[in-house]
Amino acid sequence: MAEQINIGMIGYKFMGKMHSHAYRDLSFFFPDSPKPCLKAVSGRNESAVKKAAEEMGWHSYETDWRHLIQRDDIDVIDIVTPNHTHPEIAIEAAEAGKHIISEKPLALDVKDANRMLEAVEKNNVVHMVCHNYRFAPAVQYAKQLIEKGYLGKIHHIRAHYLQDFIIDPSFPLIWRLKKEVAGSGALGDIGIHSIDLARFLVGEMEEVSSMMKTFVEERPVPSEEGGLRGTSNQNEYGQVTVDDAIAFLAKFKNGAMGIFEATRFAGGNRNKNKFEINGETGSIRWDMERMNELDVYFTDSPEGLQGFRTIHCTEEQHPYAGAYWPPGHSIGYEHTFIHLVHQFFQGISANYSPHPNFKDGLMNQRVMESIENSAINRGWEKI
Amino acid sequence: MAEQINIGMIGYKFMGKMHSHAYRDLSFFFPDSPKPCLKAVSGRNESAVKKAAEEMGWHSYETDWRHLIQRDDIDVIDIVTPNHTHPEIAIEAAEAGKHIISEKPLALDVKDANRMLEAVEKNNVVHMVCHNYRFAPAVQYAKQLIEKGYLGKIHHIRAHYLQDFIIDPSFPLIWRLKKEVAGSGALGDIGIHSIDLARFLVGEMEEVSSMMKTFVEERPVPSEEGGLRGTSNQNEYGQVTVDDAIAFLAKFKNGAMGIFEATRFAGGNRNKNKFEINGETGSIRWDMERMNELDVYFTDSPEGLQGFRTIHCTEEQHPYAGAYWPPGHSIGYEHTFIHLVHQFFQGISANYSPHPNFKDGLMNQRVMESIENSAINRGWEKI
Amino acid sequence: MAEQINIGMIGYKFMGKMHSHAYRDLSFFFPDSPKPCLKAVSGRNESAVKKAAEEMGWHSYETDWRHLIQRDDIDVIDIVTPNHTHPEIAIEAAEAGKHIISEKPLALDVKDANRMLEAVEKNNVVHMVCHNYRFAPAVQYAKQLIEKGYLGKIHHIRAHYLQDFIIDPSFPLIWRLKKEVAGSGALGDIGIHSIDLARFLVGEMEEVSSMMKTFVEERPVPSEEGGLRGTSNQNEYGQVTVDDAIAFLAKFKNGAMGIFEATRFAGGNRNKNKFEINGETGSIRWDMERMNELDVYFTDSPEGLQGFRTIHCTEEQHPYAGAYWPPGHSIGYEHTFIHLVHQFFQGISANYSPHPNFKDGLMNQRVMESIENSAINRGWEKI
Amino acid sequence: MAEQINIGMIGYKFMGKMHSHAYRDLSFFFPDSPKPCLKAVSGRNESAVKKAAEEMGWHSYETDWRHLIQRDDIDVIDIVTPNHTHPEIAIEAAEAGKHIISEKPLALDVKDANRMLEAVEKNNVVHMVCHNYRFAPAVQYAKQLIEKGYLGKIHHIRAHYLQDFIIDPSFPLIWRLKKEVAGSGALGDIGIHSIDLARFLVGEMEEVSSMMKTFVEERPVPSEEGGLRGTSNQNEYGQVTVDDAIAFLAKFKNGAMGIFEATRFAGGNRNKNKFEINGETGSIRWDMERMNELDVYFTDSPEGLQGFRTIHCTEEQHPYAGAYWPPGHSIGYEHTFIHLVHQFFQGISANYSPHPNFKDGLMNQRVMESIENSAINRGWEKI
Repeated sequence: MAEQINIGMIGYKFMGKMHSHAYRDLSFFFPDSPKPCLKAVSGRNESAVKKAAEEMGWHSYETDWRHLIQRDDIDVIDIVTPNHTHPEIAIEAAEAGKHIISEKPLALDVKDANRMLEAVEKNNVVHMVCHNYRFAPAVQYAKQLIEKGYLGKIHHIRAHYLQDFIIDPSFPLIWRLKKEVAGSGALGDIGIHSIDLARFLVGEMEEVSSMMKTFVEERPVPSEEGGLRGTSNQNEYGQVTVDDAIAFLAKFKNGAMGIFEATRFAGGNRNKNKFEINGETGSIRWDMERMNELDVYFTDSPEGLQGFRTIHCTEEQHPYAGAYWPPGHSIGYEHTFIHLVHQFFQGISANYSPHPNFKDGLMNQRVMESIENSAINRGWEKI
Repeated sequence: MAEQINIGMIGYKFMGKMHSHAYRDLSFFFPDSPKPCLKAVSGRNESAVKKAAEEMGWHSYETDWRHLIQRDDIDVIDIVTPNHTHPEIAIEAAEAGKHIISEKPLALDVKDANRMLEAVEKNNVVHMVCHNYRFAPAVQYAKQLIEKGYLGKIHHIRAHYLQDFIIDPSFPLIWRLKKEVAGSGALGDIGIHSIDLARFLVGEMEEVSSMMKTFVEERPVPSEEGGLRGTSNQNEYGQVTVDDAIAFLAKFKNGAMGIFEATRFAGGNRNKNKFEINGETGSIRWDMERMNELDVYFTDSPEGLQGFRTIHCTEEQHPYAGAYWPPGHSIGYEHTFIHLVHQFFQGISANYSPHPNFKDGLMNQRVMESIENSAINRGWEKI
Repeated sequence: MAEQINIGMIGYKFMGKMHSHAYRDLSFFFPDSPKPCLKAVSGRNESAVKKAAEEMGWHSYETDWRHLIQRDDIDVIDIVTPNHTHPEIAIEAAEAGKHIISEKPLALDVKDANRMLEAVEKNNVVHMVCHNYRFAPAVQYAKQLIEKGYLGKIHHIRAHYLQDFIIDPSFPLIWRLKKEVAGSGALGDIGIHSIDLARFLVGEMEEVSSMMKTFVEERPVPSEEGGLRGTSNQNEYGQVTVDDAIAFLAKFKNGAMGIFEATRFAGGNRNKNKFEINGETGSIRWDMERMNELDVYFTDSPEGLQGFRTIHCTEEQHPYAGAYWPPGHSIGYEHTFIHLVHQFFQGISANYSPHPNFKDGLMNQRVMESIENSAINRGWEKI
Repeated sequence: MAEQINIGMIGYKFMGKMHSHAYRDLSFFFPDSPKPCLKAVSGRNESAVKKAAEEMGWHSYETDWRHLIQRDDIDVIDIVTPNHTHPEIAIEAAEAGKHIISEKPLALDVKDANRMLEAVEKNNVVHMVCHNYRFAPAVQYAKQLIEKGYLGKIHHIRAHYLQDFIIDPSFPLIWRLKKEVAGSGALGDIGIHSIDLARFLVGEMEEVSSMMKTFVEERPVPSEEGGLRGTSNQNEYGQVTVDDAIAFLAKFKNGAMGIFEATRFAGGNRNKNKFEINGETGSIRWDMERMNELDVYFTDSPEGLQGFRTIHCTEEQHPYAGAYWPPGHSIGYEHTFIHLVHQFFQGISANYSPHPNFKDGLMNQRVMESIENSAINRGWEKI
């Protein structure tokens, strides 16, 4: 019978729900995987965390995350709290010998990310950071095609992560818009996913040149932080201290050129996480809003018959897809987390830290730091 | 605290997995719904059903479905067995006072469907039939738009359900290709979904004119019925006794014209369940392969600015979508079942049988019967 | 130097403009083609035809088409008048020994179409009918793929020609809505194009079953027949005597199944002339609104890499496309007529009547007649 | 009767054919426009220019462009020669008092572009530069929507011009790959179109940061410069002296952020000239490969009904489209030139130089110069 892995999760909001769901569904779809046991969830607000635990299926709850970390019946600490709390929690969890899965971005800066990596390495625990988009079957399949050489030498990546939820200037000043909590805005929230995907699919960047912008500099403070978006108190305003949008150019070590953009001001694009990669012998395109589809183009198709073809990545040949429904039957966003957790558990079983792990988290952080520096210094920055 | 509803499921393959998953996820996403308890699953092959029960989270198993039906700790019988077994099971379950949820098609013919409806009505149990596509948020939203009058009087529906998994003549003679087990081929397996969607969105049909065709009349018998598709024994052939494809014209009671097609021979269409509806003041289009999207067109948009717009039905305004992720984050096929079960449980709580119920199942069966008769009689058939 | 061919055109409105343009552009793009000379155009309204001749580049004009036909300096009679006048003009032109190119539909009924074919054959003149959509490069390329066996045996065609310009009940009763002038409505105006494309790409039909419908039975008479659409006099109403929409099923001689629809009531579809064809080993899709694109699917692509690919048919490998711009640079609707005239001139040079010729026109008329009979007789009609 | 304008064209290859066609079609579609008379074409190779003149309908030819400029019967000099010859020809033509229409880029550098502008202004002749994509009906309509405020304040433009015709390293070293003739590579050939569109639709840029790259640094010299692409002599290689790809970030004077890319190495993208613009209250998207379509999004659509809609810009409401066919009937690439020439002739009639004129050409050149400087200096460059 499969191994059981005991989880303690710190935080319980949007990402907490997502992770809880992934654990619940994991062994249903991947019966050979170690089985997660949802031991305990922690949060400061007792009534809220109690309710969340019940709804999401956690066996117990804690109101102090340090208690959670100290519990003997916990193997894994799952961190889904706001960004600025990641380092302290992760380091303490590592020192307690827990395996760690952390939401992204790993930290607010490179220094903290470094400390986190040192802690997990020193304590020899398994670690991952939740760049879930790597785990869409279409993206995994893209990776396979690239590794098998279908694209040849890569010349280009263009990646855009476009959202539109804060265009309205009356949208409230939620925590994601405050530097001291979020670290950055569009960059660390969504741009980081494009960075991670580019590193996964194309390779490491050498240097970047960027621009950053805050279109709406003051916003009403939230009357209450309900849901993802809150409601606003129109009488009191506060300063937005993060970027609304960033764009950057990148030169990759392998000679590829990259062009990147992340914004929350692109009307009509709810969650347009997309990229196109062009190589010597082929191209691929992907768009999270149609996450099951991968467009591929191969230069060796006969002349006259060349064109992008759309593959519905729901077939046995596509990574993870065989665990689900027949071809043509879509899966959704949450499956990217199921696959990520599946990888994490493989890592725990075999004692290695699958990508994207804290090294990736640190590297993504370095890229972000260079982007921020470039915007300030108005020039190219080495990673 | 929410009510608990105890489920007994008969069958455990593709649809059994799907239903089990829906129960598991229901209270996670809809915490106010009655809570399903996966009491027992039944199947004839003990080792297989035992394994399935473990993997899918059922508390116990039975090898005789009659035992399951007689168990006192079961409120609901869920029927996911091959089509020809539905009537006997459903009638016996109804007589045992169990609420019933049955896979489609309800039966192999109108007579049996009628008997099933009589049984559930006589025994006053709640009943539904699993036309899950009604429950995609985009389809539910389409229904709302139509009911609110956005389309005005409806003139047209064109619905195509295209698959391609049996084009290859060496594909084996699985049970879905035998009339005595499946009742019909493309018609009852996929065409019925288009019929149900048309009845849901446009209204009842008055008469139909059809054609049916079996392109490959003999196929190798399966060496083993593994998975959905099996493997074939190329030395022994058997007769395909169902349709490979059907098409029909329909006249609706409200004056609309319908054109329908279902086939398993449309190469490149893995699960292309799509329709377009045109009314006096608007149109809608939907395609299951991009199930989160609904295309809408309104004639009252300003001239020059008219065109189909694509709505990503993942927002709070879209039925069921508020239970999940932020806008633009897709959900998948399995969610249609979660929503269906959610409705079913609402029905059990309030003692009514939500649509699509056995009346719908019967009506769909009548339409299918008329289609079959039309193909034989070569003329229009009243429903 | 290339041969010169002298044209006389009867009629000068929408299609007259289109044909005039095709002649003007022909030798520019196809310098090896015989050169058209726009000798004369005829129309009853002298000031209007004079103006048209000047604007469209005709050297002279006539107010009596019989005069035009009798002129010695004319080789070809081009008929772009309303449908009911085609037979008389064509027969007289044939008897005068003129080659004939006629707009579609060839006639109002099979009897007249037959007489026309007899006339051209008896007088040994070259003849074509303007089913221009055959001549889109993407459609010609589809034909090549089919002929080369890329699709294998054909199982399905589904063809829809959807327009929406008369949904509004206040749209005036233009000539296209009167049976005595137009012969039929959506059927003969647009459905006939789908019929012709199906015959071109799939083969001859054996029998059909149809339905026809007139959604708006009375309309305001036009105050003036300006442009394609006129303006309406809201005080006087007249009877619509043609179909607003038709749909039919077809069985092809080669065993393929066809499903067809033509309507002017499909909101949001301005000129959606589209089809999909599925064969044993491949599929193709085309949509006139994106006329340069052809979608193709081949079952012999490696598993996992199968999907519809979109070819932009603007490359040297694509019929006619080499005469124009570099790959990816679109051509438009009018080019279908240039190609058709190019074929016609090839026929004149070599003394044969290229497809679609009057035989095709007659065959299309027979299919239409069977469709009309089927709608009345409520059953299958042999062609 | 409309005025006549006498044209002399210098050069006769790809763009010569395109311009000739535009003149031929202009008065057919726009009968109120001044009428072009194709007086003479010039080229150094007498037999080639003679053949071109005949095929394209020019009344005479010259083998020395200076003769052409000096002819009294010429009003307009149309320059379609390789880039490096533009300044000398244009300045001489201006001094001869001819109106001038020049292909893009205006010159190889800012200094020459400046001299050209001075010459046309000093001699008071009408001038335009052929940024034809401005004149697609969809782009003109986008411009109207922006000017009417549909998008509100603009936040973003992302524009990509992707081609793939030189990916193959054995593609020959045609003139477009030599700096002394072409000035630059992807930048001046295609990137300049994106720059021009951005200036047209969004406004002037303030500064840019760029990168440029030549992926294939040596190529076989052409054995013959036939067609656009030539054939290569695989025994002799020469240096590619222009960029294969460029990308740049831009800050606009009005605060918008721009991200741009031009490459000839994006496999599968034959002529993917596309952009998306996001404003406070709406967004638009356009793609030349589907040039008749404009996607628009408005934030004031009701919640739940928001999404990009696709407008087929072939209706009377869309600029220039009323001159052609009914709604839904596509026009092609060449129409952008007809519209441009139409504007030019309006300018000649009323004695002004319509945009894009030599001022635009100069401004585009300045942007290009800043892009090149930025690539060298590795930092932001003011325009």
